[in-house]
Amino acid sequence: MNITQEAMALHRTHNGKLGIASKVPLRNKKDLALVYTPGVAEVSSYIAKHKNEVGEYTMKKRAVAVISDGSAVLGLGNIGPEGALPVMEGKCLLFKRFANIDAFPIVLSTQDPDEIIAAVKAIAPTFGGINLEDIKAPQCFEVEARLKKELAIPVIHDDQWGAATAVLAGLLNALKITNRDIATAKIVISGAGAAGSAIGKILTKKGAKQIIMCDRAGAIYANREGNTEEKEALAAFTNPQGIPGSLGQVLTGADVFIGVSQPNILSTDMVKTMNAKSIIFALANPTPEIMPQVAKAAGAYIVATGRSDFRNQVNNALIFPGIFKGALEKQIKEVTLEMFIRAAENLAALVTHPTPSKIIPSVFDQDVVEAVSKAVK
Amino acid sequence: MNITQEAMALHRTHNGKLGIASKVPLRNKKDLALVYTPGVAEVSSYIAKHKNEVGEYTMKKRAVAVISDGSAVLGLGNIGPEGALPVMEGKCLLFKRFANIDAFPIVLSTQDPDEIIAAVKAIAPTFGGINLEDIKAPQCFEVEARLKKELAIPVIHDDQWGAATAVLAGLLNALKITNRDIATAKIVISGAGAAGSAIGKILTKKGAKQIIMCDRAGAIYANREGNTEEKEALAAFTNPQGIPGSLGQVLTGADVFIGVSQPNILSTDMVKTMNAKSIIFALANPTPEIMPQVAKAAGAYIVATGRSDFRNQVNNALIFPGIFKGALEKQIKEVTLEMFIRAAENLAALVTHPTPSKIIPSVFDQDVVEAVSKAVK
Repeated sequence: MNITQEAMALHRTHNGKLGIASKVPLRNKKDLALVYTPGVAEVSSYIAKHKNEVGEYTMKKRAVAVISDGSAVLGLGNIGPEGALPVMEGKCLLFKRFANIDAFPIVLSTQDPDEIIAAVKAIAPTFGGINLEDIKAPQCFEVEARLKKELAIPVIHDDQWGAATAVLAGLLNALKITNRDIATAKIVISGAGAAGSAIGKILTKKGAKQIIMCDRAGAIYANREGNTEEKEALAAFTNPQGIPGSLGQVLTGADVFIGVSQPNILSTDMVKTMNAKSIIFALANPTPEIMPQVAKAAGAYIVATGRSDFRNQVNNALIFPGIFKGALEKQIKEVTLEMFIRAAENLAALVTHPTPSKIIPSVFDQDVVEAVSKAVK
Repeated sequence: MNITQEAMALHRTHNGKLGIASKVPLRNKKDLALVYTPGVAEVSSYIAKHKNEVGEYTMKKRAVAVISDGSAVLGLGNIGPEGALPVMEGKCLLFKRFANIDAFPIVLSTQDPDEIIAAVKAIAPTFGGINLEDIKAPQCFEVEARLKKELAIPVIHDDQWGAATAVLAGLLNALKITNRDIATAKIVISGAGAAGSAIGKILTKKGAKQIIMCDRAGAIYANREGNTEEKEALAAFTNPQGIPGSLGQVLTGADVFIGVSQPNILSTDMVKTMNAKSIIFALANPTPEIMPQVAKAAGAYIVATGRSDFRNQVNNALIFPGIFKGALEKQIKEVTLEMFIRAAENLAALVTHPTPSKIIPSVFDQDVVEAVSKAVK
């Protein structure tokens, strides 16, 4: 069996990947009286009078909702809530495995931002944090921004900030290996959706000054015909010379390609036009913008993907367990851009001797969650 | 430590009772590639094209949402979502323990029926069933009715139907022991909220003809001043003689008292006015309408409560695990009143020789879930 056949078989055999576990025994009437009526009544009464202590007596302070409307699932697009559910279950499994966080998947029957916001606000009291996932741009920006403002628990759209933080971590080491300065490196980002725009923001905040972002129409620049409000906002801090052109055109002479876009859109010819010691992050999932061996053969010096079956996995799985762990433990209401940058720096520093085939830790490296979580404070 | 102190300590030690469990291993990159990207993409794509198979590849067909707005929690009243959470966690734990159902607590920040309905509809795609819990009357009726109509998965307000089914099961054996016919037994129900009205309905459907329902103002009868629409509907099939009066007055000469109302409202004097071999179900939680030993001392022949620390626990914990198990396994869209009645009959029949101190099985009796679940077909 190949990996897709194996994955299908695994999911079908177990009917998914996630279950509920009891943390306390339930063997007899005595146990029942403690966990349910009458014993639980005292706990409920106490919490009702001391709401700020709810996390001490319930799962709330370990519970994260992984919420998707199924509108932008992996690289599969708008496949709806049912199709999104296995991804969200997988994400919850990673939360549990890496940070002992009890995350639960919630897939939504609506893709309307107002309805999403209303639903998330309605169910929020159960949770200590909200992980928004695979919600398409530009709707994701409004959903995240409003929920951040209206809820008293951390709300993170992981496709933006998990991805951006992982990219920054990998890039810091890739720049180090190739003796480049982030301020002068010529960086092309392919994809101006949730991940792309957050990557643009975090790299800019960290000092990048030569970023060109591309969408399907090519380079984004100020006052480009048809620019949405979001694209215009991106143009305000990227592409300072207002360079137009196709992805292939703007990639000529670039140091770094970061793809969070479409499968196989990066050709070997395009790689060959990049500067020597080129850095390629082909992060589209499940099929990258270029396969690593193809990129290498075309001369790429450092190649990363989002996949666990290749070297240099730049994946938000490195980020979200630790970020939420830190946020939940420290009862942070909002995780800031500065915290994400610190998390990326901590993560990059875990690789003491970065090489082209090792720019970022593995999600299985034991120190990852701790390094990331301590960035939240 | 007494039971309330022990319950507080248990909840605090473990920070609640519920956690998430992984059903598949996640040890290495290979495992990661199967449960997450890239392997999961094939599963998502497949489900997107075959939505009716989502339950085979995800937790959906085992997943139940236990949803409360915290407006009518146990006997504690409107204590809000935080206070409700330990009860909902407890309920999920029972789902797991007794029926291997993966139930998750969702407590809501709203008590508005329209907003509750919208939120439940929004999150429904994750779940195979919806258990509404501790939502106050009359709002609970509208919420349940509309969700039943608008969702394609079973929606059960357990305070109504779990309670009613458990009461019917216990009552069938209590009537048998005392040689009474349900059609002629004089039954007084104290409490006309969610549980009370459902008990009135299920007993009537099973053949009871002499029911008087009481609320705080006493007996409910047709055209009583101030009757709400719901009370008028109850009066249409109960209290055929239109008898007015206080609970104490209508209880005189009654065979059966069923309380789903307030702590300690049933006095020994009231018990003494009931017929010989009186049957008392004092089901208010956590404090019953009368304590069992007090009722017995006043002459009650059969006494039941909702609590696990007394004999004859008439509790919906006997019902909901099996009902949902049957509904999920058989993919039933709606659990009907006939199914609940059959569940009560199956449950009652498990007690082969009912006695005053054993009218209903224990939730720990192994056959309970199977007997109840097979009523759903």
